[in-house]
Amino acid sequence: MTSELDRLKLDHLRVVLVSTRNPLNLGAAARAMSNFGVRHLRVVNPYSVAFREARSAVGAARLLASAEECDSVAEAVADCSLVVGTTAVGHRELQHRVRRLEEGARLIRKRLRTGPVAVLFGSEKVGLSNRDLSHCHWLMRIPTREAHASMNLAQAVAVTLYELVRQGQVPSGKAKTQLATSAEVERITSLLFEVLCASGYVKPRAAADTEEKIRRLVRRLNLEACDAEVWTGMLRQIRWKVGS
Amino acid sequence: MTSELDRLKLDHLRVVLVSTRNPLNLGAAARAMSNFGVRHLRVVNPYSVAFREARSAVGAARLLASAEECDSVAEAVADCSLVVGTTAVGHRELQHRVRRLEEGARLIRKRLRTGPVAVLFGSEKVGLSNRDLSHCHWLMRIPTREAHASMNLAQAVAVTLYELVRQGQVPSGKAKTQLATSAEVERITSLLFEVLCASGYVKPRAAADTEEKIRRLVRRLNLEACDAEVWTGMLRQIRWKVGS
Repeated sequence: MTSELDRLKLDHLRVVLVSTRNPLNLGAAARAMSNFGVRHLRVVNPYSVAFREARSAVGAARLLASAEECDSVAEAVADCSLVVGTTAVGHRELQHRVRRLEEGARLIRKRLRTGPVAVLFGSEKVGLSNRDLSHCHWLMRIPTREAHASMNLAQAVAVTLYELVRQGQVPSGKAKTQLATSAEVERITSLLFEVLCASGYVKPRAAADTEEKIRRLVRRLNLEACDAEVWTGMLRQIRWKVGS
Repeated sequence: MTSELDRLKLDHLRVVLVSTRNPLNLGAAARAMSNFGVRHLRVVNPYSVAFREARSAVGAARLLASAEECDSVAEAVADCSLVVGTTAVGHRELQHRVRRLEEGARLIRKRLRTGPVAVLFGSEKVGLSNRDLSHCHWLMRIPTREAHASMNLAQAVAVTLYELVRQGQVPSGKAKTQLATSAEVERITSLLFEVLCASGYVKPRAAADTEEKIRRLVRRLNLEACDAEVWTGMLRQIRWKVGS
């Protein structure tokens, strides 16, 4: 979960969708924003039907209702001190420095501490125009494969926001589970051995070898304490059955 | 860009979509797979119209054409030694360990070096059922905010695959042991369940619950392939005894 401090920083982020055509993409982008706690959406020159229809997006109605409609990229990024474009780096010659998403997100996070940052996403068909790009300080790309680089718009928004949120997390330390004690593991070993003897699995002449083999086998399970208890219960019941 | 070696590893990944209803989501998930160079899609019980209509997904037609249709989760994960479910962790009480995407992806990448790994995504409305989840070793969640945790299906696929590809940049070492496949683990689950039924451990009214509980319990053992063989042999012998 992202911290309160982090939310405040994300509040400086503006997602700018330029010339979006498909209402489903608009709605889905808004949903992704809501999922990751990013609130400020600006749309530049959207296909107006798309914008109206998008307002039904799952869980993102309020976000869409408060989206700002802008006439130009210049207007949409006016209050931002950093403007970053996204690109699939296709056929076009780019004049900008292109950073991988991971590196770009790191720089964006730094700048979010001090003021608004805009991240621009272009239209489904052609992405950002050279004119749109001219408003950007640098570009960012998601590491898709060259043969099929172009992502769905809303997926690109989701992945970008995920990377921004991810970096805000304190890396999780190793979670600890309570492992079974040796005494518990040995109890399971004995029970299993008894059951196997009663079932005819253990050949009397090889009993000592088999017991050792089973002891190693059970230890390789690295049983957690609570699971050890369940296994003990199951084996007791089976022992009762094979013994009767 | 991801390296050649890395592609080979990703080739071990199986994306399993369970009960997907919306053709747009199926198509969009396939497109994300294609973007990130993941080829193997398996669909379990899809709404058949959705499956047919999805085949027009941008740039992912070939991937969809080679998608495998499976009748059950068990069938879809049979060749995999690690099965990971995805969840938004909503209202349900989860029986599994839930890892953050970042940590989960790290573990998945390790395991991709040695064999097939399945990542499961549930239906748009209800996600994965408890029965679906019982086939999983552990679960993974994308760090969305609690108030709106549930992501669009295809976006969840995109973010998950991005995280897996992103981590491919960091080289890592250490060879691994060969783990049992899901088919082998499921065989052990069935044998154990039979033995426990015959022993009176399983109460008839709670049989379905107990079966799921046992399925999860057995998966937590993370059995190695050679040990799985030994356990199968032992359980067969015990079954013979308790049945006689």
